[in-house]
Amino acid sequence: MKLPGQEEFEASSACENIPTGEMDSSLVPDPNPGGPSDTDSTEVGVFKDPMLFIQLNELLGWPQALEWRETGRWVLFEEKLEVGAGRWSAPHVPTLALPSLQKLRSLLAEGLVLLDCPAQSFLELVEQVVRVESLSPELRGQLQALLLQRPQHNIRTTGIRPCWGFTDLRKASHDEDTPLKEQHQNALRLKLPPGVEAAAVLAGELGFLAQPLGAFVRLRNPVVLGPLTEVPLPSRFFCLLLGPPTRGRGYHEMGRAVAVLLSDPQFQWSVRRASNLHDLLAALDTFLEEVTVLPPGRWDPTVRIPPPKCLPSQHKRLPSQMREIKGLSRPRGAPAEDRHDHGPHATCPELQRTGRDHNMDYLPFRLWIGIWVATFCLVLVATEASVLVRYFTRFTEEGFCALISLIFIYDALCKMLNLTRAYPIQRPGAPAYGCFCQYPGPGENESQWTRTNLKNRDDILIMDLGLVNASLLPPSECTRQGGRPRGPGCHTVPDIAFFSLLLFLTSFLFATALKHVKNSRLFPSMVRKVFSDFSSVLAILLGCGLDAFLGLATPKLLVPREFKPTLPGRDWLVSPFGANPWWLSVAAALPALLLSILIFMDQQITAVILNRAEYRLQKGGGFHLDLFCVAVLMLLTSVLGLPWYVSATVISLAHMDSLRRESRACVPGEAPSFLGIREQRVTGLMVFILTGISIFLAPVLKFIPMPVLYGIFLYMGVAALSSIQFMKRVQLLLMPAKHQPDLLLLRHVSLNRVHIFTAIQLACLGLLWIIKSTPAAIIFPLMLLGLVGVRKALEWVFSPQELLWLDELMPEEERNITEKGQEPEHSFSGSDSEDSELMYQPKAPEINISVN
Amino acid sequence: MKLPGQEEFEASSACENIPTGEMDSSLVPDPNPGGPSDTDSTEVGVFKDPMLFIQLNELLGWPQALEWRETGRWVLFEEKLEVGAGRWSAPHVPTLALPSLQKLRSLLAEGLVLLDCPAQSFLELVEQVVRVESLSPELRGQLQALLLQRPQHNIRTTGIRPCWGFTDLRKASHDEDTPLKEQHQNALRLKLPPGVEAAAVLAGELGFLAQPLGAFVRLRNPVVLGPLTEVPLPSRFFCLLLGPPTRGRGYHEMGRAVAVLLSDPQFQWSVRRASNLHDLLAALDTFLEEVTVLPPGRWDPTVRIPPPKCLPSQHKRLPSQMREIKGLSRPRGAPAEDRHDHGPHATCPELQRTGRDHNMDYLPFRLWIGIWVATFCLVLVATEASVLVRYFTRFTEEGFCALISLIFIYDALCKMLNLTRAYPIQRPGAPAYGCFCQYPGPGENESQWTRTNLKNRDDILIMDLGLVNASLLPPSECTRQGGRPRGPGCHTVPDIAFFSLLLFLTSFLFATALKHVKNSRLFPSMVRKVFSDFSSVLAILLGCGLDAFLGLATPKLLVPREFKPTLPGRDWLVSPFGANPWWLSVAAALPALLLSILIFMDQQITAVILNRAEYRLQKGGGFHLDLFCVAVLMLLTSVLGLPWYVSATVISLAHMDSLRRESRACVPGEAPSFLGIREQRVTGLMVFILTGISIFLAPVLKFIPMPVLYGIFLYMGVAALSSIQFMKRVQLLLMPAKHQPDLLLLRHVSLNRVHIFTAIQLACLGLLWIIKSTPAAIIFPLMLLGLVGVRKALEWVFSPQELLWLDELMPEEERNITEKGQEPEHSFSGSDSEDSELMYQPKAPEINISVN
Repeated sequence: MKLPGQEEFEASSACENIPTGEMDSSLVPDPNPGGPSDTDSTEVGVFKDPMLFIQLNELLGWPQALEWRETGRWVLFEEKLEVGAGRWSAPHVPTLALPSLQKLRSLLAEGLVLLDCPAQSFLELVEQVVRVESLSPELRGQLQALLLQRPQHNIRTTGIRPCWGFTDLRKASHDEDTPLKEQHQNALRLKLPPGVEAAAVLAGELGFLAQPLGAFVRLRNPVVLGPLTEVPLPSRFFCLLLGPPTRGRGYHEMGRAVAVLLSDPQFQWSVRRASNLHDLLAALDTFLEEVTVLPPGRWDPTVRIPPPKCLPSQHKRLPSQMREIKGLSRPRGAPAEDRHDHGPHATCPELQRTGRDHNMDYLPFRLWIGIWVATFCLVLVATEASVLVRYFTRFTEEGFCALISLIFIYDALCKMLNLTRAYPIQRPGAPAYGCFCQYPGPGENESQWTRTNLKNRDDILIMDLGLVNASLLPPSECTRQGGRPRGPGCHTVPDIAFFSLLLFLTSFLFATALKHVKNSRLFPSMVRKVFSDFSSVLAILLGCGLDAFLGLATPKLLVPREFKPTLPGRDWLVSPFGANPWWLSVAAALPALLLSILIFMDQQITAVILNRAEYRLQKGGGFHLDLFCVAVLMLLTSVLGLPWYVSATVISLAHMDSLRRESRACVPGEAPSFLGIREQRVTGLMVFILTGISIFLAPVLKFIPMPVLYGIFLYMGVAALSSIQFMKRVQLLLMPAKHQPDLLLLRHVSLNRVHIFTAIQLACLGLLWIIKSTPAAIIFPLMLLGLVGVRKALEWVFSPQELLWLDELMPEEERNITEKGQEPEHSFSGSDSEDSELMYQPKAPEINISVN
Repeated sequence: MKLPGQEEFEASSACENIPTGEMDSSLVPDPNPGGPSDTDSTEVGVFKDPMLFIQLNELLGWPQALEWRETGRWVLFEEKLEVGAGRWSAPHVPTLALPSLQKLRSLLAEGLVLLDCPAQSFLELVEQVVRVESLSPELRGQLQALLLQRPQHNIRTTGIRPCWGFTDLRKASHDEDTPLKEQHQNALRLKLPPGVEAAAVLAGELGFLAQPLGAFVRLRNPVVLGPLTEVPLPSRFFCLLLGPPTRGRGYHEMGRAVAVLLSDPQFQWSVRRASNLHDLLAALDTFLEEVTVLPPGRWDPTVRIPPPKCLPSQHKRLPSQMREIKGLSRPRGAPAEDRHDHGPHATCPELQRTGRDHNMDYLPFRLWIGIWVATFCLVLVATEASVLVRYFTRFTEEGFCALISLIFIYDALCKMLNLTRAYPIQRPGAPAYGCFCQYPGPGENESQWTRTNLKNRDDILIMDLGLVNASLLPPSECTRQGGRPRGPGCHTVPDIAFFSLLLFLTSFLFATALKHVKNSRLFPSMVRKVFSDFSSVLAILLGCGLDAFLGLATPKLLVPREFKPTLPGRDWLVSPFGANPWWLSVAAALPALLLSILIFMDQQITAVILNRAEYRLQKGGGFHLDLFCVAVLMLLTSVLGLPWYVSATVISLAHMDSLRRESRACVPGEAPSFLGIREQRVTGLMVFILTGISIFLAPVLKFIPMPVLYGIFLYMGVAALSSIQFMKRVQLLLMPAKHQPDLLLLRHVSLNRVHIFTAIQLACLGLLWIIKSTPAAIIFPLMLLGLVGVRKALEWVFSPQELLWLDELMPEEERNITEKGQEPEHSFSGSDSEDSELMYQPKAPEINISVN
């Protein structure tokens, strides 16, 4: 699991994705100036500009066979028609040459600019456009005929699911320019959000023109301009760029420039509100001021840049805009409200061992611990101790998470190793071949067997059995026929050890590989999603299938057949004292204290993570109510002798991850964005009802080989460990500076300091591991709490600025920084504008739990 | 192996890397205008401009504590000082804002421009610069003191190997401005090519200035300006940009703009030759015309773009330049000259089987085949038949390569399966447990054993042996003591099957993983190179180690101990007739014909691949001499009864791959570029001497388990298969159009046509496979030749344009296209400038052989 909020501060990931249909429009509070919208879209409110679909129709075939052909289109990014392949290119960031923008500017400055043109059809529009003074009436006629010529589109009509619900746009065409059937069947139409408007750019070289002709039209009411655009959308903008043939593809590039300008949200916003030519040119100049320039010697302009993961913040670009950067501070110690799921609980095997070692009546002692834990927890609730979670910074969270992951990995490997001990490998030097079936009868020297009592294998091997009545029946058959299997070979099961190892590796590798299918390019997204979401389940099924196919006697999951207490003879209710002396019920307070710390930490770290602002939860946090529920459940399970507590982090995060809502990336080149969590109580309830029912699934579960489960444990541990920032920093230790990724962290903290921080974390982890492995394990929870102390002590080693990047600030430090206005590096370097922006952008959540 | 020249036409890979020190300078034929260079570099000839190291010193700390601090540096790409982290950023493509370039232009237009300034020291230079009319004498003094202040550098002095040989640059400083010791120890100095010059840009805000102050100086003779630049290099350019405090970081950005301009080869070329301000501004305008512009709404300017794999071609940017695009056409039918290595040869197991099936004397028949093959090959040499290799296009090459790869994969899997048959897995239902040691003596019923003769295992199992004299000694010990091991369990070896499978998977996965270590970010490049280059060897060693550790009786590589003919009793020389009838020596001509085709194809395809222009071989091709050598060797090995012929492709390509010369990427951000092949005969000779010696290595080789070798075979097959373009196209079949990579191929050929081409190739491959698996296998070489015919027939299905992208053209098609000037799509779409450039750029070789 990746602890969310532990983003790697990677420059490319620290951004906010805003879903299509909001991004380009949500910034714009002004009402639509074009009067009431005549589209039938419902989502486009008064305060939002519609999105633009921009199409470039190019005039080709001069002088023989003139025809208009769609050669480019833009929604968020540019798609270019690959003429030879007859397909649209992959969406890419449009790049322009500066001269084409400058030529465009002068052409528009001299050309025809019609803002709020009242044309109701394409014919009317064309008539208005060709009414330019410089043209002779004959030329006007020719031009009008040419413009009205039907353009060639590259339309894919194969079936596709609508992304935005099927909105019938045919209603929008309210004049004679009826669009073609293929336009209506265009698959792209279903990908565009409702209410989208079109812009048509017509560009090309026309031999009979003496001088360039430029026209920019904004229609007062958008109308469907017949077959002009490939999608029958109402058009808002129309731009015509024609001129005599020139060297290079001047008009094509100018056409692209207009299209790119119109696809820019800021320019679009301005040009929708422009009242004259001056406004239009001012918008173009503003665009020019903000472009990014790549030097010709270091960048090949023919390279197509794939769409970036996140688009630049448009907040900065609209100074008139209220820049609401929503709460970055996470809610701490918020009032209680229940949301998270708690299953039956179970921890501290240490305690159980202690109890058994000292030969006391375990369950009553456990009951008392439960009573004490419940009491302590209730005290914590009553004193609102959850406020202390403010001190759990990433340092503590990562330590906790890394430890849990390492325990998973260690246990999986240990258990596999134990399996190979239980099913030993038969080496040539020490064979366990001998086995035959011996019948009681004359010549039998039973006494000899009994005497040696199988104590020493070598004794048996070299022993001359003398005359025996024997057969070679297999052991089970032998017993059935009244014989007795003899020899060391009868009890060994060959091949199991290596087959278990194979199953272990298979399930681990398959689970890992299937999880990564999500990022593959192969298969449709639906298939990839299924493979990825159910990677663990599929890996388990594969392991079971392999096992069943070969039919070997691998160790299987043991599930009791009956529903009853495991300890024979005990009642469902635990008696409060049993055989224990009375003072043990008081002494139970000590282990209960440690257990309470553990539960408190697990519970609250989980709650802190779940309540981070990035998840955009609507309902408030439930810190105290959660702990109250845990206390009550502890009491209940202690009385019934049931398992106590399961570490909540992994389950809860996996649950939340499964409830993510993401926008469907429909507009070409758009990345899916996080919309929020489907907050409800049904799934949680169902999960635990199904978990409960699983006790009746013994007939199915007994087919699952243990090595497969160990493989999944290993996978979970590795996946969780590799997703935390701590591991990224550990990798930095092994990485030459040249190859280190461009982490924001590394831009601000010197590498040595980063390494020291990582080393301290490693040392803490090592210490915790050692404590866990010794008899001192019982104070382990205390040491875990000690992480907070270590973190506090780090303030003497690192500056607040460094800690801000490496970890996050503790409450006191935050106060200090705010009071002193202490920003050493910014005041020094003359402000690092790039980073500061990335730093304060809200982070996209990155829950990356691999556990299904 | 990737057949080279089978580049995937991927937009990003089709480029030519030119090594540092040539790239920026080789374009410039004019002599250095600055008089004789006083640097001690030898590589910088008269016709080459030196490379520039550009440093930006920024004035920080106004108004309290003014200091100059180096905040950026440029050689090929930009590196920015991360002030907080105290380290240099990763090199990235510099991006600029347009206004800063425009402001810079006006500042330079009004400022001081000194071209060919004769200053000999920094003091002289500063005196000239501050002699501006607008400044009062008092200000001049203040400014001069400020400029002479020692700047703060961020210097890493840790040891690093020099990239260009250690050139002592201290000689270059011939005046009093002695650089500091830390400057001399700067690690960066060793990364720069010899003869590099420096440019210093000083920018910042200065409160006491009333108006902006701009100065651009080109020194007539470059001098080391004391501690001004972090590396003590002679400076050629000096630029000063100061002014009153403004909003934003105006002067910082202008300083960056100057630096980026100077790092542009075209601008640098112009400004070195500029004779007045007008030339300087014209160079800036040319730069502006060629910049790539990214729209603000679709690109976040704070994103750092990593250095592209290839830099844009500078040929296009210098029209005055002779654009020598070196021969793209590959040499076909070139005159013979020997280069390639041919080991002992061995093919056609089919033939051997045929011989044995018909119960004839094999070796004499084989001798006659050898004689015939040699004759045919000599005829091919005499008739210069190698000219026919022109008809081997990528279609044929890929078919051949895919078939070889598939055979590798199939054989590896088959042999592993056979192993599990030889060492059966013991399932619970059919145990082979029974085994004991039986002594001859009284009560023994030997007759019973003999009678059943072990024919039916079940018989033995249920048989009551009666009274036997037995012990449980292991089989070997039992035999030694005069007993006899009895029972089915004595002969089974458990655990071997699964352990073999584990070894197989381990060696396959490790070889694959180690090969990919090369692309990892971890470890120094030396370690990664070793892991990657020796991936197969390391995987074999690991497998052997595992096997030795467990000590199981896995099947090992069998090597004869003695050096003698394998067939017992035969002489070293094969008798020409033996027991065969005379007519068999004539009939041998038929199989010899087929074998000749196979050898010809293998030999010539390999030669065509090796002689591709991309490898920049200096020595000519050796098509005919190679074939002549093969003919002689065939004769020799037939007479001696030695193995005939080993498919040359994999070995030869691996050999060439190991001899690649690549530039060491030293300048920050530079990608290593291909320099050529180390052409000599020593390595080839050594390889085959060592191969010969290996017959005496039996004591070592017998420790290698067979499953490990099978794993390596699988790895070789998979690696070879996955590297050919054919497999990329097969993957396209499974890939949704949205996720397909931006292959040049897909930009020009419609997806359906690509799929049809792939399907035809798949069908051919399937047919070949079927033929190979049936008794018709003997005509397999003919069918392989049939691929050329299929390719010829494809001309009726696909247009020449499509075949140009999917394959390459056959000689007739090429002639047709040249004659007719037939370029359908280009004439149609109005020329696709981007692609055409990528298409005609020489391709970088991409030998990607995974076989060590």
